[in-house]
Amino acid sequence: MTTATADAGLYGEIQAFYAHHMRLVDDGHIDAWGETFTHDATISNNANPRPAHGRDAIVAVIRRAHAELAARGVQHRHWMGMTTVEPIDEHTVRATSYALLMAVGKDRAPQIDRSTACVDEIVRTEGRWQIRDRRVRHDALPA
Amino acid sequence: MTTATADAGLYGEIQAFYAHHMRLVDDGHIDAWGETFTHDATISNNANPRPAHGRDAIVAVIRRAHAELAARGVQHRHWMGMTTVEPIDEHTVRATSYALLMAVGKDRAPQIDRSTACVDEIVRTEGRWQIRDRRVRHDALPA
Amino acid sequence: MTTATADAGLYGEIQAFYAHHMRLVDDGHIDAWGETFTHDATISNNANPRPAHGRDAIVAVIRRAHAELAARGVQHRHWMGMTTVEPIDEHTVRATSYALLMAVGKDRAPQIDRSTACVDEIVRTEGRWQIRDRRVRHDALPA
Repeated sequence: MTTATADAGLYGEIQAFYAHHMRLVDDGHIDAWGETFTHDATISNNANPRPAHGRDAIVAVIRRAHAELAARGVQHRHWMGMTTVEPIDEHTVRATSYALLMAVGKDRAPQIDRSTACVDEIVRTEGRWQIRDRRVRHDALPA
Repeated sequence: MTTATADAGLYGEIQAFYAHHMRLVDDGHIDAWGETFTHDATISNNANPRPAHGRDAIVAVIRRAHAELAARGVQHRHWMGMTTVEPIDEHTVRATSYALLMAVGKDRAPQIDRSTACVDEIVRTEGRWQIRDRRVRHDALPA
Repeated sequence: MTTATADAGLYGEIQAFYAHHMRLVDDGHIDAWGETFTHDATISNNANPRPAHGRDAIVAVIRRAHAELAARGVQHRHWMGMTTVEPIDEHTVRATSYALLMAVGKDRAPQIDRSTACVDEIVRTEGRWQIRDRRVRHDALPA
């Protein structure tokens, strides 16, 4: 194993960070979720040729998506797993994970809408972790 | 991150506790599963206005449910994930997770029957963890 | 809890090992995946009366399976979870997990094809973990 050299403390910290991060967006706390990104964060994926630059842009995109879901009576549950964590420097890690996007709603069975692979660069600033760069690859779309 | 301050040792312990706890019930070891609750444990959820009070009541409910599943040739696989762990005091934590209930059986594909969010208060007594209070919110039911 | 006595360091190491191990096979790096088994490794399951003995045999089976999947435009995503880790000796652990096999592909929703329980004996050699014995029980097949 050359890619998973984080010590156990760091590994558990990142798992807990993701749980907190995803629950915020799933529960609609979009501003608090935004604070789990650095101000200059970037998100890119293979679904959109134009990456989102900056926390404000990222939050704006997700706020619209969340409002649209709510209007349809759908809630998302993000599951991340199969995570490896590589320390980059004392304050930075690269975390690679699988992520599932599950859609839930009243009176219906849960449905896995999307499978992705996610590579995050996460930095620790003043004792807390924030995502600086996120790259998502949707399995259902051309690489 | 203000909600995930458990150290790595505690975090891994709770993850392993859940794996053990859920495997017991999935495999039909209902009495041993009962021992992962305190004697005075309470389970409440948004599917039933009347919470179950006490390990004996909890075990009785699950024993009936398990027998009914077995009669239908169905087995459950509980997956918990996206866990955060907050220490309450030296012997108590609050753990918040997503949980999926998967139904499996012979000659059929697995099916996710239920998505829930679960908040447990878990206490350490004589070196082992036991759930004292469990609150489950089913995503498919009114809050 | 009598079955989950690994310390947190060990527990996180095994979780990270599985993430690395499964990503290798899912991404088609079959030779590198083979190196996560010992040379004398054995895999057995309840789908096949004849277990595979030795890394070369294991790799050959998976190489054929992967080529067949690729020809059908399908990719696998293995999710392991609900893991417990028991130390056997200073260099060996027994890890018990649930595992899901998810099939993904372009322009289609992810599908959970298989639910299994997996018991691995994993040994540490020269600082890295390798699986020496894997026993898989498919939930959809007779025990």
